[in-house]
Amino acid sequence: MIVELVSTGTELLLGQIVNTNAPFLAAQLNELGFSVLYQTTVGDNRERMKNVLRTALARADIVITSGGLGPTQGDITKEVTASLLNKSMYFHEPSAERIQRYFAERRICMSDNNLRQAMMPEGAKIIDNTCGTAPGVIVEDQTSGKIIINLPGPPHELSAMFETSIMPYLKNQFGIQGAIVSRVLRTYGLGESALEEKIKKYILSQSNPTLALLARNGEIHVRITARAASEIDALQLITELEGQIRPLINEYIFGIDDETLEKSVSKLLLEKELTIALAESCTGGLVTSRITDVPGSSRYLIGSVICYSNEVKVAHVGVSAEIIASNGAVSQETAESMAKGIKEKYCTSIGIGITGIAGPDGATADKPVGLVYIAIEGPAGRVCYQHYFNGNRTDVKHRTALAALNHLRHYLRTI
Amino acid sequence: MIVELVSTGTELLLGQIVNTNAPFLAAQLNELGFSVLYQTTVGDNRERMKNVLRTALARADIVITSGGLGPTQGDITKEVTASLLNKSMYFHEPSAERIQRYFAERRICMSDNNLRQAMMPEGAKIIDNTCGTAPGVIVEDQTSGKIIINLPGPPHELSAMFETSIMPYLKNQFGIQGAIVSRVLRTYGLGESALEEKIKKYILSQSNPTLALLARNGEIHVRITARAASEIDALQLITELEGQIRPLINEYIFGIDDETLEKSVSKLLLEKELTIALAESCTGGLVTSRITDVPGSSRYLIGSVICYSNEVKVAHVGVSAEIIASNGAVSQETAESMAKGIKEKYCTSIGIGITGIAGPDGATADKPVGLVYIAIEGPAGRVCYQHYFNGNRTDVKHRTALAALNHLRHYLRTI
Repeated sequence: MIVELVSTGTELLLGQIVNTNAPFLAAQLNELGFSVLYQTTVGDNRERMKNVLRTALARADIVITSGGLGPTQGDITKEVTASLLNKSMYFHEPSAERIQRYFAERRICMSDNNLRQAMMPEGAKIIDNTCGTAPGVIVEDQTSGKIIINLPGPPHELSAMFETSIMPYLKNQFGIQGAIVSRVLRTYGLGESALEEKIKKYILSQSNPTLALLARNGEIHVRITARAASEIDALQLITELEGQIRPLINEYIFGIDDETLEKSVSKLLLEKELTIALAESCTGGLVTSRITDVPGSSRYLIGSVICYSNEVKVAHVGVSAEIIASNGAVSQETAESMAKGIKEKYCTSIGIGITGIAGPDGATADKPVGLVYIAIEGPAGRVCYQHYFNGNRTDVKHRTALAALNHLRHYLRTI
Repeated sequence: MIVELVSTGTELLLGQIVNTNAPFLAAQLNELGFSVLYQTTVGDNRERMKNVLRTALARADIVITSGGLGPTQGDITKEVTASLLNKSMYFHEPSAERIQRYFAERRICMSDNNLRQAMMPEGAKIIDNTCGTAPGVIVEDQTSGKIIINLPGPPHELSAMFETSIMPYLKNQFGIQGAIVSRVLRTYGLGESALEEKIKKYILSQSNPTLALLARNGEIHVRITARAASEIDALQLITELEGQIRPLINEYIFGIDDETLEKSVSKLLLEKELTIALAESCTGGLVTSRITDVPGSSRYLIGSVICYSNEVKVAHVGVSAEIIASNGAVSQETAESMAKGIKEKYCTSIGIGITGIAGPDGATADKPVGLVYIAIEGPAGRVCYQHYFNGNRTDVKHRTALAALNHLRHYLRTI
């Protein structure tokens, strides 16, 4: 079955917002086995929208629109859909009541034009909106057997409505039996092509489950998607394939699905009942900030010092002035002394020291922008890593944070 | 003149990447006075791409494609363009040489298929790619007077090629005289509709310059765009309108164009020759990290303590244990004591203390998730602000960081 996505809205045509609804719907529909062959964006203009919908209906079996279900005169998607399929509009009492209730519960005064949102194409299935006022609509064209689905534009409303109502409808309508399940293996430390090389055999040979690699903010995600009669069977297929590829890339996998590097570090720290403190220089607090993105991180993070000046490194982290004088603030010796110093001052099981040159200034002949030292001191002894990172100041900070969290993860696994 | 943007690529159809080329091109073209009425995405399939381009050419004067100029067999955009306009392809020697040079300079071995990128539609204008290998192409159809422009898919290649070559071509081709200049006034602290209300009169009455409001990560940007015979004249128009709206919203404007809150704070700290240190609890280092995103921040940021535990607040920031015991760690008194303590310990002109409940745990009956205190101690005395922020843990951290930077900006302006 061929699907066309039609996104509506002037903000999209003016380039004021990025369209995230289309990739969300495309990914979901592809997993269900539909082919999304076209995506079109058009403004809130009756004639142009009607022509775009007509073209879409000619080349696709299912057309899914987003946007234009709001209360204003510019919101015309349902009307244009009805007009194209020669259906009239009628006032849908239950939707009107639901919209009135929505406002009453929030003690907001409803303006009359909100009731426009209860006008529906004759014969349409009405889909409740659990996150907002605009209902969605499914219109089946009896003559052609084709379907137009109107979804609201706000991404959280659209995604909730798709998952709770549209996906079950499509599965039922097209006899999509069983389950489609995905699992993401999140990796760090190996580039996309090197990772692909290692598991190439499985990427090429697999049709169920399928394997896909996606680069995401310095991580590479390996996505395994399986279809089977039941969720249990699909999970079984995923687990089998995971068992085959894990031995090839296991050291790079840090988490499953939504498990970030900081979450995998969190699990290890809690499991081993360890506490931590950091002395951050070039990262300016970014690593500690990521660690504290995890709820409950106060159970293992005691505190950190952002020691931007040498005085703070000496007075508040316990680095000796001689170490800085003889090796420089950006050196293995200083990083190690920072890790040791913060561990002692903050009485933690583990201390981390990070020093480097984030740029654009501060480089010398033998110490370029991007040079970073990351030291860890703890129950498994002392380690220090030297890196040369590319990119601008915020890139270097971001890459250092990822590397530091990953070094910590490896360190914790040895304890 | 009507423009249609055609984005090509399987990754877009599968929903694996978000399309940022379309909004970039749409924004630029709208500023030039073109109407971008349609945006279409299609995969690397000859027949479907040809049909999409045919439809586009029927309803638009200019069609701009992105993607499909690479070296692989799947890269077919130029061939399909040529085929649609009944043009043959030929080998463009200068492009081949430039591509060979590109690889030689980087000491990378070039595979033969890279020379496919030098195959060009007969009669096309060839556009050099300053950031990559694939040249761009402008094909003018003599019979219809319409134009197809093929641009590379990687966003940095596309934007560079558009700005250096395509924009001048379009201005020249369509006699777009003079200059179009934009200025963004970045604001914080007032919602989009409240801000709109204040300058509504100017939004509605203006056609040149135009005024647009854009919400961006908790900031609202007021974009002023003027067209005039010369850049100086356009700037004059902008300055006049800015002079009229500034008095209405001046307290909310923190920067111009790419000036972030941390950059505006940086300018004030340097100008007034002040130094700063922070004691961050619920933000976990995020505020200091943002401050250190600015190059040269080591000139005023001495250091910070991320005092996640009460022990660190007492031992390393100088908060008295009694203050915490009698008021709680999340209280005005503790925030003020943190600001005063870090200022003294780190010998700076200004100290900032931030404490709050980021959630999801930690709330009590009278202290909900999202309650945050931000205190500043310095030459202009002591201030403390109480906030109730919405959202999840990272939302609360992000909103606290924006608020803290903005409070600091206001504080510095009074010194």
